[in-house]
This record gives sequence, C-alpha cells and structure tokens, in this order.
Amino acid sequence: MPTIPAPRLHDLGVELFVACGAPADEADVVATHLVEASLMGVDSHGIVRYTWYVEQCLEEQICPGSPVEVVGGSGQVALVDCGMNFGQVGAGRMVDLVRQGALDGGIAFAVSRHCHHVGRLGAYPQSLAEAGLFGFAVANSQRHGHFVVPWGGREGRLATNPLAWAAPTRGRPILLDMSTSMTPEGKLRTALHAGHAVPEGRILDGDGRPTTDPAAFFGDGDGPPQGAILPFGGDLGYRGFGLGLLVEVLGASIAGVVLGDEDEIPYINGFSLLAIDPGAVTGGVDRFAGLNEELRAYVTGAPSAAGHDEVILPGEREFRMLEVRQRDGIPLPAETCRLIDEVAERVGVHAGL
Amino acid sequence: MPTIPAPRLHDLGVELFVACGAPADEADVVATHLVEASLMGVDSHGIVRYTWYVEQCLEEQICPGSPVEVVGGSGQVALVDCGMNFGQVGAGRMVDLVRQGALDGGIAFAVSRHCHHVGRLGAYPQSLAEAGLFGFAVANSQRHGHFVVPWGGREGRLATNPLAWAAPTRGRPILLDMSTSMTPEGKLRTALHAGHAVPEGRILDGDGRPTTDPAAFFGDGDGPPQGAILPFGGDLGYRGFGLGLLVEVLGASIAGVVLGDEDEIPYINGFSLLAIDPGAVTGGVDRFAGLNEELRAYVTGAPSAAGHDEVILPGEREFRMLEVRQRDGIPLPAETCRLIDEVAERVGVHAGL
Repeated sequence: MPTIPAPRLHDLGVELFVACGAPADEADVVATHLVEASLMGVDSHGIVRYTWYVEQCLEEQICPGSPVEVVGGSGQVALVDCGMNFGQVGAGRMVDLVRQGALDGGIAFAVSRHCHHVGRLGAYPQSLAEAGLFGFAVANSQRHGHFVVPWGGREGRLATNPLAWAAPTRGRPILLDMSTSMTPEGKLRTALHAGHAVPEGRILDGDGRPTTDPAAFFGDGDGPPQGAILPFGGDLGYRGFGLGLLVEVLGASIAGVVLGDEDEIPYINGFSLLAIDPGAVTGGVDRFAGLNEELRAYVTGAPSAAGHDEVILPGEREFRMLEVRQRDGIPLPAETCRLIDEVAERVGVHAGL
Repeated sequence: MPTIPAPRLHDLGVELFVACGAPADEADVVATHLVEASLMGVDSHGIVRYTWYVEQCLEEQICPGSPVEVVGGSGQVALVDCGMNFGQVGAGRMVDLVRQGALDGGIAFAVSRHCHHVGRLGAYPQSLAEAGLFGFAVANSQRHGHFVVPWGGREGRLATNPLAWAAPTRGRPILLDMSTSMTPEGKLRTALHAGHAVPEGRILDGDGRPTTDPAAFFGDGDGPPQGAILPFGGDLGYRGFGLGLLVEVLGASIAGVVLGDEDEIPYINGFSLLAIDPGAVTGGVDRFAGLNEELRAYVTGAPSAAGHDEVILPGEREFRMLEVRQRDGIPLPAETCRLIDEVAERVGVHAGL
C-alpha cells in the first residue's frame, strides 16, 4: 500500500477544495481535519473522503464559501445555520462559539441546521479540551442513513449516531469518540472490500437474521443496504438504543428539525456541541486538568487483564497512531489513490497519487 | 412475597425519616422518591433502602435537615453543597436550580459536593422532562465502590457510574437510566441471594478470571467484594469504559473533587445535572415534545425482531410497571420487611410489615 506524507495530502486537499470554489482558509480547515483523521487512524473519516467531498461540491450538495450564521437561540444556546458549507467549516465555527460562550457564561450549547458531513466527530470536543474545557458532541443523520435497528426491532430507524466527549489532562486529552451502534457503516464497507467476515452480533441480513457476512448487509450493492446494524451493547442493546436516541434528540429534535423532512431542510449531520468551563465551577482550568491527570494515573495504574498489555485512556491509541503516521506517512489503498486522481481531474487538478 | 400498597410504604418512610430528625417536607421527598423507584420496578433503589438510610442517619453519615447551598459557580453553572442531607433532598434542589437556570439562560448545569446517595438517577432528568426540558445526569461514587475494571485491566477503578437522560413527548417521557458497567452491583446481590448465576461476560472473580458465579465476585462476604465488574460493551467494552470516565469527569473532576480524598470531602455520589430549554432554540417547548412524539412513532413503528413483541422506548417498561404496582401494590421480600421492622424499632417506629 502506498504511504504518502501528510503535508503532501494536506496540500492536495487544499488545492482540490479551492478548485471546488472554497476560500483558501476554509479549504485549509477541511483538508487539515481530514488529514488529521487519517493520521489518527480513523481512515473512514479521512483522506478517503476527498473523492466524495469533491463530488458533493460538483453536485452542489456542498456549497463552499456559503456563510455560517447564528439564526436563533437565546442565552447560552445558539442555533447555527451552516449553509451547507463543508461540515467542518460550520462545526468549526460552532467550536469557536461555544468556547467563547462557556468562558463568558460557564456553559454553552450550539445546534446546527443545514450541516453537511462533519467528519471525525471527536475533533470538536478535542478542540475544546485543548482549550481547557469539557466538550461533548453528537451527530445524527437523516433517514437515508438509518441502518440501525431499535432494540427489539428489525428495520433500521437510526443512523450509527456517534457521540464524543473530551477533557484536558496534563498531557493528551481524554477523548472518547464512539458510535452508538455495534459498528459504523464504514467498517462494514472495509470488510466487504477486503472479503472479511465481521464479528458475530454486529449485523442482520435483509430478512432480519443475524449474519457475519457484510455482503448480506449491503445486498446487491446498488440500492441502499438491505440489512441492518444492531444497537451497541449485545444483550444489553437497549442501552445503545437509548444512547442513539439521545443523539437523535440532541442532534435534531432540539434544533426543531423534522424527521424525514429532507427536502425542506437538507442536511447530512445534525450536529450539536456542548462546552463547560471548569473554571466557572472550581476557579481554575488548571485544577480540572490536574484532577483528570490524577484520574489517568489511577485508572491506567490498574494491572492489565489477560490479553492486554496495558490500560490506556480513550483516545490514546489514536494519539499514538498520529505520531507514527506523522513520521512515516499515511498508508492509502491503491484504489483510494486512483479514485482521488480521477475526481481531481474533473476539477482540473493533477493529484498524481 | 407480601405485596404492600404504595401509600402505606410512603407513610412509613415519612415516619421513619422524621424519627431520624428530618423535617416533614424532606422526609416526604425521600419517601416519595424511594416508593416511586419501587413502583417502577427499580427495586434496588427503592423501599429496600429504608434500612440503610435509617442506619446512615443513626451513624450521622446522613444529616437530615442540613442546609443545601450554592457555594460556587458562575454564569449558568452552580456548585452545590448538599450538606450530607439525604441525596434526594440535595439533588431535588439541584433540579429546581437547573430548571430555573435553563428557563432563564437556555441551559444550566449544577454539580454537587457532600452529596449522599441520590437513589434512582433517572428521577432527576425525568423531572426536567416533565417540565418540558431536556435533562441529563450522572452519578459517580468514591473509591469504596470501585468494582468496575477499566478496559484491559483486572482491578476495579470506577464505580458502576450510571448516566441518565430524559426528554418530553406528548405522552410519557423518553427516559434512559443505565449503568456504564455490565451490571449494577445490586443485581449481583439479588442473584447471590437467589442462588442464581449471572449471564456470561458480566463479572470477574478475585483472580481476574471470567465467572458467572456472584459468590466469586463477593468473596467471603465480609470485606469488600474480591472480584470485579466489566465495563459495558462486551468486546467493545472500551466504549463503556469511556462512558464511565465521562461520569467520573462530570461527577467529580469538574466539581474539583479529589480522587480518594474521602476524609476531606465525604460523599456517596458525585452528582451532576444538565438542563436545556428547547424553547431557547426553536421558540417553543411544545414543538420539542411534538418532534419527540414523531420520533417515538417512527421508531416504535419498526417491525419487531424474533423474540420481541414490540419496540418500546427507554423508560416505557418502568412506566408500565408503575401503573401495575400503583394498582396491585409493591411486592417486598419477607427478609426486606423483617429488616425494615428491625431498623424502625431502633428509631421508635412500629413498622409492622
């Protein structure tokens, strides 16, 4: 598999998105975000998305340069119209907004409308944690992404509805970024392409029967998937279902977004973001980071179980991968390179991957 | 098993807590909370706690009538000293505080210090949802309750750290109240007393090996448990671990509470509560409830999977049980009745269960 230095992929991304009509600063935001996702090993939300994002621009589903505006809300709560700009541009403005809101009033919350794909959800609470705050985010998706069955059901009613939170320590932040389903769709597609089975208890086929074959999930491959994904939790899956509903309520209902009303209010992700300033409670961000550092030491000091080398905090695996790939480059499947080369030509860019 | 009408158990609770020195209104808050938990089928957080609460009063671990005061925080964030009053009294004041705060500023957050056992965690977001708001709560516990291993570890570092959220619909609220571990400790104790095994994948014995025998978790029964509970999620347990850490960070670190500093700042639960007023976003609570009602119809309309009769929302099972037990009474094991009779005598009350 070709391995490509991150700066080269970043510059290519900027060139591609500028060619799609994005202002240079916004193209940089999007490319930086996608490269960081790949650096951290979250490949499904990284460079592989260059192709789709360019296509979405060409189809005018993404509107580069479109304004991101606060259109509602009061007090410490804001409703933000992301104008179908790149999701990273809208969500990035929402980070700035809740960061300042939390510093002003202790806590702040923002919800989106007209938000395209925000990418790696954890990036946003991570930014807040890097500013010393507590951050929490959710992202839902519209009906076309509803592959996840409710607990006890056999037809999809929710998307993989991720949630993420982060908090500062003295070193890297604690960062959890999880789907509320048994697997994100991206991993199923990866398994399909690699010809691998997926672990038991993840998916159902088109008849609602358990399967480990990703092809039984996707069906003939042309239409939407025929099968479904189970909610997170195995025999306690009602909990994962309840967390998926949490994402739905905070990502859509609370923003006044109507279920299935896609033609009226198109969006890809219903994104919401919460920031809390620990300084508002205890008088200092530094104390919060220090207490989380003590928590890290206490928790990771547990002796490891059979089959594990050590106890690490959520996010640590990704931060370690980031160091490796910053040094060694980002591995990209030849097929991904080919698709990016192709789409680049369509906007007059020579990618040469 | 004796079945006792809820009003009789409520009046007994009031009598017991007044005998412990509680003002009548606070005794009513606590008894109402515990009776409601039992009515909803959450027996581990219900009437069975009468005994322990009275004992804690006698040992001056609970301080009835002690003031609950806002001692810190700024903007929409409050730090509340619950004065080691009954947890329900402190947490109930925090509900009032964040409800008013959210109505004033769109969102509000409160964290506790010196908070005793808050009981059924879902009760607090449920109260907010009944007022038309979105509510979210967490409760951690101090080291003595750290039975839950971190992902990849084999010694307990977290408590069962529940989280709960609720939102209004046109009918009963959506209400999720879940442990972030594979099982609450209460269920293990119930299985031990009943001589039942617990399902696979829930607990470890004192040597860190998987077991289904609750006795292997509790050890000889005199000291603290010898075994440990796994984090929620089976082979995806790093997610449950990450949710457990979320509860730890929001329940303790953000309140400035130091790990293991029990002698300095005694508490049972580190409780925090968030309220969001959907009216601040979309101009009306009614619209939020209406959209959640649409969500309910869409989700519960999914055809049911094999082995399930229907799709129901989180909380629905408990609300149905409440109706049954309001009509038929609350079943109480003879041993629970005997223990309550005994502890009642110690405070000069004739329970006569």
